[in-house]
Amino acid sequence: MTLIVALDRVSPGEAEQLVADLCDVVEGFKVGLPFVLSAGVRLVEKLRGACPSRLWIADYKLADIGYIMRLVAEEAASWADAVIAHSFIGVDGGLGELAEHLAREGKKLILVVSMSHPGSRDVYDRATPYIAAVVERLRPWGLVAPATRPEMIALYRRKAPWAKILAPGVGAQGAEPGEALCAGADYEIIGRQVTGAPEPRAAALLARRRQEERLRLCRAQS
Amino acid sequence: MTLIVALDRVSPGEAEQLVADLCDVVEGFKVGLPFVLSAGVRLVEKLRGACPSRLWIADYKLADIGYIMRLVAEEAASWADAVIAHSFIGVDGGLGELAEHLAREGKKLILVVSMSHPGSRDVYDRATPYIAAVVERLRPWGLVAPATRPEMIALYRRKAPWAKILAPGVGAQGAEPGEALCAGADYEIIGRQVTGAPEPRAAALLARRRQEERLRLCRAQS
Repeated sequence: MTLIVALDRVSPGEAEQLVADLCDVVEGFKVGLPFVLSAGVRLVEKLRGACPSRLWIADYKLADIGYIMRLVAEEAASWADAVIAHSFIGVDGGLGELAEHLAREGKKLILVVSMSHPGSRDVYDRATPYIAAVVERLRPWGLVAPATRPEMIALYRRKAPWAKILAPGVGAQGAEPGEALCAGADYEIIGRQVTGAPEPRAAALLARRRQEERLRLCRAQS
Repeated sequence: MTLIVALDRVSPGEAEQLVADLCDVVEGFKVGLPFVLSAGVRLVEKLRGACPSRLWIADYKLADIGYIMRLVAEEAASWADAVIAHSFIGVDGGLGELAEHLAREGKKLILVVSMSHPGSRDVYDRATPYIAAVVERLRPWGLVAPATRPEMIALYRRKAPWAKILAPGVGAQGAEPGEALCAGADYEIIGRQVTGAPEPRAAALLARRRQEERLRLCRAQS
């Protein structure tokens, strides 16, 4: 499956309902810092327990020295299969330590390489050659690149053929379902457009259908 | 006062004792994500209540789109006077939204401009001109620059004379107390060397004495 649902601004009760509704129609769940801070780690463990076969991603956007990122990863170890950190942090004393820690624990590392908001162009996207070098050195399981800028997805698709590419920014942030898949992403991350919908399961199924239609179209054109 | 203590890997009981011991000898407390995730927001509120006159800093190293950073800042609003975010996120749809939110709430924004680990040279420090432009545009209350690289502190001291500079990396990460102050920092952040000491209060007072000695020396030389 190609859809990952982001849990950010939802209440504990809504989250339990969402996971029950969506477990069999999504690839996984990306759990953000706002949700974990307000709901607590124990609730996230419970959510995972209700849908254990999917990919659970701790989206803390880690961006600290290695020592601190390891401590935070340990706090998510009970429920997360994968942890998102920023490539911007660099390797020695930073992502290198986190990568080794996650590898030992059998967890996946996912690195942000570009972001979906316009400000990503201020600094992040100007550093692309250096960021690509960090990615090449660490060879993480996955990359996060924005659905709102398909050219960045295409670029990292070429640079990191081994990596899964996860694309946020679908829905509320403006990208259409399937757009990022056409550019080379493996998964699209959708948040408010599903979690805030009157019928989240129907919204997720609709997003999947629209992904498939768009993929069919772009494959026919290429 | 020129010393800020970082609470990262301490138990709830240790944290309460540390805050009681240190409240009158430090400028403030920097509370990291590992501590908040393990101890919970309620405990941090209690710690702040035990020492309300000091500066309380939420050190989540925020690095997300504006919408998410605002949600996280709201989760820290009950106890934090200041929030740390990464300058590399850029302004539009990112730090700009966070800065506006914090200004409305009467809270301080602190931006990381360089980091203390060697990997900071991989990407972060190569982007210095772009990061300086973000700082110039947002004019945050404070900046975080590493005590382990005094040249970065001196550089941002010149570029941002209005800003308070906070320097982590003192103690366990290798910088000597006072070194960053000599380079132009306003505060030095010390973690394990105080929080892990048999007598934290004595360790903090010793660090302050060493800061003063070093400052006297470097001022005499300049």
